[in-house]
Amino acid sequence: MGPRKPLIGVIGASKPKNRDPENAVAVGRLIASKGWIVICGGLEGVMEAVSRGASEKGGVVVGILPGGKASDANQYVTIPIATKLGYARNAVIAQAADSLIAIGGGPGTLSEIGHSLSFKKFVVGLDSWAVPGMIPAASPEEAIAFTEKQLKKLGLI
Amino acid sequence: MGPRKPLIGVIGASKPKNRDPENAVAVGRLIASKGWIVICGGLEGVMEAVSRGASEKGGVVVGILPGGKASDANQYVTIPIATKLGYARNAVIAQAADSLIAIGGGPGTLSEIGHSLSFKKFVVGLDSWAVPGMIPAASPEEAIAFTEKQLKKLGLI
Amino acid sequence: MGPRKPLIGVIGASKPKNRDPENAVAVGRLIASKGWIVICGGLEGVMEAVSRGASEKGGVVVGILPGGKASDANQYVTIPIATKLGYARNAVIAQAADSLIAIGGGPGTLSEIGHSLSFKKFVVGLDSWAVPGMIPAASPEEAIAFTEKQLKKLGLI
Amino acid sequence: MGPRKPLIGVIGASKPKNRDPENAVAVGRLIASKGWIVICGGLEGVMEAVSRGASEKGGVVVGILPGGKASDANQYVTIPIATKLGYARNAVIAQAADSLIAIGGGPGTLSEIGHSLSFKKFVVGLDSWAVPGMIPAASPEEAIAFTEKQLKKLGLI
Repeated sequence: MGPRKPLIGVIGASKPKNRDPENAVAVGRLIASKGWIVICGGLEGVMEAVSRGASEKGGVVVGILPGGKASDANQYVTIPIATKLGYARNAVIAQAADSLIAIGGGPGTLSEIGHSLSFKKFVVGLDSWAVPGMIPAASPEEAIAFTEKQLKKLGLI
Repeated sequence: MGPRKPLIGVIGASKPKNRDPENAVAVGRLIASKGWIVICGGLEGVMEAVSRGASEKGGVVVGILPGGKASDANQYVTIPIATKLGYARNAVIAQAADSLIAIGGGPGTLSEIGHSLSFKKFVVGLDSWAVPGMIPAASPEEAIAFTEKQLKKLGLI
Repeated sequence: MGPRKPLIGVIGASKPKNRDPENAVAVGRLIASKGWIVICGGLEGVMEAVSRGASEKGGVVVGILPGGKASDANQYVTIPIATKLGYARNAVIAQAADSLIAIGGGPGTLSEIGHSLSFKKFVVGLDSWAVPGMIPAASPEEAIAFTEKQLKKLGLI
Repeated sequence: MGPRKPLIGVIGASKPKNRDPENAVAVGRLIASKGWIVICGGLEGVMEAVSRGASEKGGVVVGILPGGKASDANQYVTIPIATKLGYARNAVIAQAADSLIAIGGGPGTLSEIGHSLSFKKFVVGLDSWAVPGMIPAASPEEAIAFTEKQLKKLGLI
């Protein structure tokens, strides 16, 4: 096989606000268009929106689920990983992702941001928490541009 | 998207014995030929052999890694999930798989068999541990035939 | 403080058979009498029996619970650790214990035995699975005698 | 046995700043004086300081360690739980604690705060992150007073 495809963690709340759903759909489309893989929590809200966007472009979506049933995944997840780890699965998403994009988000997303930054991962924020070390982006396109630069730095593209 | 592809857990030792590597390559080829996905521990031995077999047929291989680096995965893994959970990741493989095939194996494999059976998963054994509840198969082909029957029963194919 | 007290993992089914409950109560009493700590799954069956035995002798019982509520623990657990990790918590028990005693047991216990042996832990079996590497004991007293020898070897007592 | 003792999660960085160490020692002393149990990450920095404070008052200190060895714990931990879960253990601390106190802290602490708030836990902050939902305290004594009120509300004292 050729080199593996980058895994982009997309994190955000199950109850999104304002422009979060549109942003997540746009981010999903852009990730899939680049040939990258979405890794997310696999449930509803931002997770479903990014999955839908990636799915529209034929992308692969890995859903790291907190529960034990693959059927918990939203309908756009192509590879459901039913962990039954509860929200310890947030640490797995942060660890497994090559780079992350946070869209909006509540305290669960904050836990993922904290894990990601403590793992020295690159985290772009789109209308998200403002935590030192995160890179704010003004649009889905900018979030992807920052992510692309990071993937190049990591030698993954 | 259409229905998701079944995830077949393939478990076995990093230090395989006897015919384990050939069996694992054959099982990997058969899984990929069916259009199913391999989910395994992502490292060497049986894990690498099944990944290689699936890769030869263009299949998807999810590697649920115990460590924190995607680069720990063998070269045939297409989607490395670096969990940093240590061997608690064995429970994740058992939980996420729709059906499992154990090939040979040491105590780590035994932990995966125990988890799988306690989760009421279907586990086919190929020269593996003999645990009540497991289904012994005489060949890779038979292991796949038993697995296919189970996937039909689950409504996944 | 002085040296820490040894943690003895006691593993067994939530639905015990035959003499398992009496054996577990006796093992719990003996562990607490030695001044060691019981670490177990914290639920019912063998877990509750060993907790009861230790409690009768004023011992400390750590219950590593699969769910998210401390109130899931049986009434004899003195330190409930609600992990919400599901059965991945079995790997935690195996890892955290200095030495283990398996009493009877179904597939969940088998997963704990597999994890323990793969972590090179000492596992005594009392009417339990017969896995190469486990040490069979004929009575609670013998299980404790074997365990005591191992703790000395580890320099913990 | 009587009712179990409350578990107070104390979270903070391994590299503490300013008054964090003194605050952590004071918090540890106060927790132990109340007869409550400290649950923390078991390593150095704030974790070691709170363990030392509790230890001085004869308290119990549970250390939920990211690695696989009990000997990784600081010397004041009385019950080391070597999880080998990596930083997914942060979710376990948040889940297992009845109430939490954050002292200073970097991104790892932020992940614990995020988990705790998403689990609807009560989190007092002492010179820590300012996250909506956290309760800021001006001193160790005030942190304990807020915690005590919460434990009463939970019916644990």
